[in-house]
Amino acid sequence: MMDRLEEVKAQVQSALEAAMTGLPPGELADAMRYACIGGKRIRAFLVMESARMFGLRDRESLPVAAAVEALHAYSLVHDDLPSMDNDDLRRGLPTVHVQWSEATAILAGDALQSLAFGLLGDPQVGAPEVRLALIRGFSEAVGARGMVWGQALDIAAETAIAPLDLVAIKRLQQAKTGALIQFAATAGAVMAGEDTAPLAEYARNLGLAFQIQDDILDVTGNEAETGKRTGKDGAANKATFVSLLGLEGAQDKARKLVRNAENALDPYGEAAGNLRQLARFVIERDA
Amino acid sequence: MMDRLEEVKAQVQSALEAAMTGLPPGELADAMRYACIGGKRIRAFLVMESARMFGLRDRESLPVAAAVEALHAYSLVHDDLPSMDNDDLRRGLPTVHVQWSEATAILAGDALQSLAFGLLGDPQVGAPEVRLALIRGFSEAVGARGMVWGQALDIAAETAIAPLDLVAIKRLQQAKTGALIQFAATAGAVMAGEDTAPLAEYARNLGLAFQIQDDILDVTGNEAETGKRTGKDGAANKATFVSLLGLEGAQDKARKLVRNAENALDPYGEAAGNLRQLARFVIERDA
Repeated sequence: MMDRLEEVKAQVQSALEAAMTGLPPGELADAMRYACIGGKRIRAFLVMESARMFGLRDRESLPVAAAVEALHAYSLVHDDLPSMDNDDLRRGLPTVHVQWSEATAILAGDALQSLAFGLLGDPQVGAPEVRLALIRGFSEAVGARGMVWGQALDIAAETAIAPLDLVAIKRLQQAKTGALIQFAATAGAVMAGEDTAPLAEYARNLGLAFQIQDDILDVTGNEAETGKRTGKDGAANKATFVSLLGLEGAQDKARKLVRNAENALDPYGEAAGNLRQLARFVIERDA
Repeated sequence: MMDRLEEVKAQVQSALEAAMTGLPPGELADAMRYACIGGKRIRAFLVMESARMFGLRDRESLPVAAAVEALHAYSLVHDDLPSMDNDDLRRGLPTVHVQWSEATAILAGDALQSLAFGLLGDPQVGAPEVRLALIRGFSEAVGARGMVWGQALDIAAETAIAPLDLVAIKRLQQAKTGALIQFAATAGAVMAGEDTAPLAEYARNLGLAFQIQDDILDVTGNEAETGKRTGKDGAANKATFVSLLGLEGAQDKARKLVRNAENALDPYGEAAGNLRQLARFVIERDA
């Protein structure tokens, strides 16, 4: 699985660089490229590995993987802004607004979103109907019912009188990170014209496990490894899976979700080996 | 022409409201709807009137018109932010970040961009290949080679040592406002499978005339009519068409561009009457 993840990383980095070739030179293009450096590329892996499971070639799924990572990069740049989460460190580097300015960070994020939609239209991806189905799903996963809504809930929670309960946090995370993870995990099935339900179930469990591990790492991790500031949730008195379930409770919950995610892949047998390993990796990672 | 513009306004407002029906309630949805209120709807008119010229029905072009206006609304919300142009008044109302917060303004803009791409995928618009061609053109017009790049140039100009010259301002405006106007004016030709060149030529001249009139209104207009702050360019010592050409020079230039725009429509004869009238309206408007 780790070999495949490295392979995906290299391919996605090349695809993103290619998509940004020939942009008018300046801070905007510099900031866009900078925002796309690094990352675990778990979303790209979900796209390309699930697509491969259905017999699709990497060159077909690669533009979709690059689109998802460009979109994810935009969301990090905007989430890190002073008026949002106000983070100065990301992927081990100064955040875009620290490196350049708030204006450049807002614009780079905006342009990365446009770039992502453009990538989904790439003829390599398949028949026009397939590309349009992906674009429709992407718009839903990103917008005011998906990722952006989740971030709005997260911001609202910071000023709420009472901390969120478990139901509210699950709903928030299902939107903020879950929707794009689900898009990524089901994209291969959409491209192949196969049932998306098992991968959607896998993604729902995986996405939540991923978020719980993020909350755990905010407590147990260090900045050198995670590449971002840790201990922020506790300092902000923010309700997280750890604050609500305790550290051990959160770890138990994450393990249970990963088992559910693995079980959801039963219909695919051995072919889903890498996706099962990814689920375990998500809660074993320390970065 | 004014009747048709009012008709377009009403249709686009309904289409935008329909596209935002059922969003999860809260500040994000409120801010998105607020950002879509009002406006001259010139871009929507360009889409729907040029489409009609090629025999397309309003119900085919309406989702494209709504997409262009949603995108334009997002760009205004982000451009008005404190770290960008720092405007507190727009379309006669407090700007989104004043009414809510910077975070909500950034997120509402982000979600409006996703919504716009989603609208272009509407099956009403036509064959899958047509919708994909529009999505490709839209991504180019919006992103790091189009509107967002133009805004980045505009922000950079504010801190530049020397004011921009006429060539640089034309390049900036061609990107910042021209690219989306050109997309709007040529969308009907793309949908109909017709040559886009005459309408692109029309749009290039119209877009520049529109911007010159904006610069003129910043000097001669008042806030009650324009619905936004005036006199800002002079106060900021910003190079504009008026500062470079003088008020009369700018007016002459705008009139010349409108004549060019009208001439570009010669291939369409009488059918382009409304588009010719729009070109004249653009430099006669006081708002």
